[in-house]
Amino acid sequence: MSEAYSPTAGMQNGFDMALLNTLSAQEQSIVERRQKLLGPSYKLMYQHPVQFVRAEGVHMYDPQGNEYLDCYNNVPSVGHCHPKVVEAVSKQIATLNTHTRYMDEKLLDYSEQLIKTFETDLGSVMYTCTGSEAVDLAMRIAKFNTGGTGIIVTEYAYHGITSAVAAISTTMGKYVPVDLHVRTVRAPDAYRAGPDVDVGARLAADIEAAIEDMERHGIKFAGFIADSLFSTDGLLPDPVGFLKPAIDAVHKHGGLYIADEVQPGFGRTGSQMWGFQRHGIRPDLVVMGKPMGNGLPIAGVVAKPQLLEEFGRKIRYFNTFAGNPVCISAAQAVLDVIRDENLMHNSKVVGDYLLSGFKEIAKSYPQIGDVRGAGLYLAVEFVKDEESKLADKDITLKAVNGLRDRRVLISTTSPGENSLKIRPLLPFQMKHADTLLDRFEDTMKDVASKA
Amino acid sequence: MSEAYSPTAGMQNGFDMALLNTLSAQEQSIVERRQKLLGPSYKLMYQHPVQFVRAEGVHMYDPQGNEYLDCYNNVPSVGHCHPKVVEAVSKQIATLNTHTRYMDEKLLDYSEQLIKTFETDLGSVMYTCTGSEAVDLAMRIAKFNTGGTGIIVTEYAYHGITSAVAAISTTMGKYVPVDLHVRTVRAPDAYRAGPDVDVGARLAADIEAAIEDMERHGIKFAGFIADSLFSTDGLLPDPVGFLKPAIDAVHKHGGLYIADEVQPGFGRTGSQMWGFQRHGIRPDLVVMGKPMGNGLPIAGVVAKPQLLEEFGRKIRYFNTFAGNPVCISAAQAVLDVIRDENLMHNSKVVGDYLLSGFKEIAKSYPQIGDVRGAGLYLAVEFVKDEESKLADKDITLKAVNGLRDRRVLISTTSPGENSLKIRPLLPFQMKHADTLLDRFEDTMKDVASKA
Repeated sequence: MSEAYSPTAGMQNGFDMALLNTLSAQEQSIVERRQKLLGPSYKLMYQHPVQFVRAEGVHMYDPQGNEYLDCYNNVPSVGHCHPKVVEAVSKQIATLNTHTRYMDEKLLDYSEQLIKTFETDLGSVMYTCTGSEAVDLAMRIAKFNTGGTGIIVTEYAYHGITSAVAAISTTMGKYVPVDLHVRTVRAPDAYRAGPDVDVGARLAADIEAAIEDMERHGIKFAGFIADSLFSTDGLLPDPVGFLKPAIDAVHKHGGLYIADEVQPGFGRTGSQMWGFQRHGIRPDLVVMGKPMGNGLPIAGVVAKPQLLEEFGRKIRYFNTFAGNPVCISAAQAVLDVIRDENLMHNSKVVGDYLLSGFKEIAKSYPQIGDVRGAGLYLAVEFVKDEESKLADKDITLKAVNGLRDRRVLISTTSPGENSLKIRPLLPFQMKHADTLLDRFEDTMKDVASKA
Repeated sequence: MSEAYSPTAGMQNGFDMALLNTLSAQEQSIVERRQKLLGPSYKLMYQHPVQFVRAEGVHMYDPQGNEYLDCYNNVPSVGHCHPKVVEAVSKQIATLNTHTRYMDEKLLDYSEQLIKTFETDLGSVMYTCTGSEAVDLAMRIAKFNTGGTGIIVTEYAYHGITSAVAAISTTMGKYVPVDLHVRTVRAPDAYRAGPDVDVGARLAADIEAAIEDMERHGIKFAGFIADSLFSTDGLLPDPVGFLKPAIDAVHKHGGLYIADEVQPGFGRTGSQMWGFQRHGIRPDLVVMGKPMGNGLPIAGVVAKPQLLEEFGRKIRYFNTFAGNPVCISAAQAVLDVIRDENLMHNSKVVGDYLLSGFKEIAKSYPQIGDVRGAGLYLAVEFVKDEESKLADKDITLKAVNGLRDRRVLISTTSPGENSLKIRPLLPFQMKHADTLLDRFEDTMKDVASKA
């Protein structure tokens, strides 16, 4: 791992406690209470953390009434406090909230509609409360059905925070050991590999080699899990289709492919409901989470029904809160809004516009090595120079904090913490895109002049 | 494991699919859709499953408007659709729902109040969405701080469903292997041990022996986790104080004691806010869940602050939905209602009344081997005869289903599936207790006459 890669378990774009005395007295008090009550796991974003008291649509508001353009939060994906979600949840919580061991038709109606979005043999769903729980469950199902324990992930993967899932989340840093049964493969990073490398073929070859290495160690291969947008590996959307040979290799060796759709799912990529669909591949298990209930804790695993048959008969699995009527009502409203407001199409149109806009601005700044994206999920990667492609974390953090000061919320990604993670809410309009581009250009002028 | 103990991974009191044709056409259709859409992990309760369309206070209502007395659900602990919870959630979801990486004073205010209920050195809290996630996190913290991997649990423990937590949940059955680093000890079952056995001393001795066995296998002891009411071991509340020598043994050997308060917490036992407090002991970590948000997914780990220090600095842990303003608003309302409606005191008074009532009825039925409880959590244990104490699962299921037919909701517990699990909502009134006792007596007359 090169020097440019962070060796710490620290959070990207986290507030540095050494800056405490730069904050107002009231802010200092909040930060100190957090430290005392919640402990050091709780990190704040930005050099100057933000406090919000309300939010609506694509905007968030601080206590002074200042308006921030939210280009980061992918949980309230259909818009902050969307009236349809608010109405559905408020009505349901006043009527009934219980578990799934009573008969509940709304749960079934929602499940039917969710499953229909796959148009494949993914015909059953199990609910959890978080994406981490969903990945954890999908791994249990994959291991149970294959009899294997070996899991393949990319070098900078993040899949969640249960013990088992943290142990496959290679991005966690040295204090969270990767499980002995896990092998890593290079992420399909077309920018860093350069034009002469077919990243799809390389990924497939890496997977073959990883399986061979597992076998050499007496480990039976269970499956490959990947976010089809490789969000923590730096956001790697292109070239479309590169996952196909990798998944063929997985299936050839009897493994299962778990599509982690927590980030790309629910229309984020603009072209399809699910990120894996861009690659023309068929997962065995799909994991979803974050935007599923627009902020209410709901997540799930969609699976080929045969994978749940013996598992369901032999393994007792009951998740108390999962699939409860209140969270399902939120999830139903999200599906309805994505369809009724044509949000997937919007993600495509506005996303394409933003991609062009960022590429145009990039022409003036050699520090920007690459601009890429799919729908309303974009990355702008900063490098020290175009030749070495060495990660420039410093300018990245300056840009993120410069945008925060201009009341635009984004964050960072990439192993080198050198890409802007730009992930606007799905109802983002052209005028919001223009504001984002204007303020980005303004920030770049400032940041580049100081460099 | 004796014949009386279920060797299956099946759910206690689950609907048997062989009874499908005893249901109405509409019910059959729901059951079949569930099978198809959700798979066989999704079990229904009762021989005749129930459908609910609304709930209020301690009652639930089916589509025909029939009223059921809820003596089972411990999640909507302050009452179904409590107006204070409904109001708090409805208001917050229309205002702001986001994550914990922005400054949020309500999160801190709630955390402060929650921590105050402990009156010990448990001074920090980390939030999760489910009890399973909380146990998983507590285990990570315990292992990180002790450098050990060895966990001790009771023989029929249930702590949750992530991979790591299922592997310490000994109740899961043979298809979910117990982790190699786990040792089990006998539950402190005073009824089955008999009057000559000091179950507290026996538990402490079992723990000492388990630690010795771990050491023999090169496993470093990390900690002991127990539900202070031993809900799945059959509900074992007495004699008060029996946990003291066990926890002393844990601490003597450098281990941590994780109190699983998912079941006994938030005033359920009537005498104290937390179940471990009945035993006069001090945990290092406390896990809470189910009733915390009255049905919104929120759970957490309360810890000695020093246990979170290095862990928080080295291990990245961020749980997207955990501690969000909507779930916190529900949790705040729950704390307020417990205090304002004096629900802990109510749990004590009505719980004691129920305990006497069940004991009185038991005098007429030799099939009832034992009646026990703490606050509004009671168990009635059925045996084939008082001498052998052999579990009578058959009569237990008849009683549960008999009560369901009389529109009273309870379920079963105990390794032999031979105890009624009676867990009314905290605002249960004397009149509700009388209804429960009347219908129980009526059920017993029926069940006993057919035996």
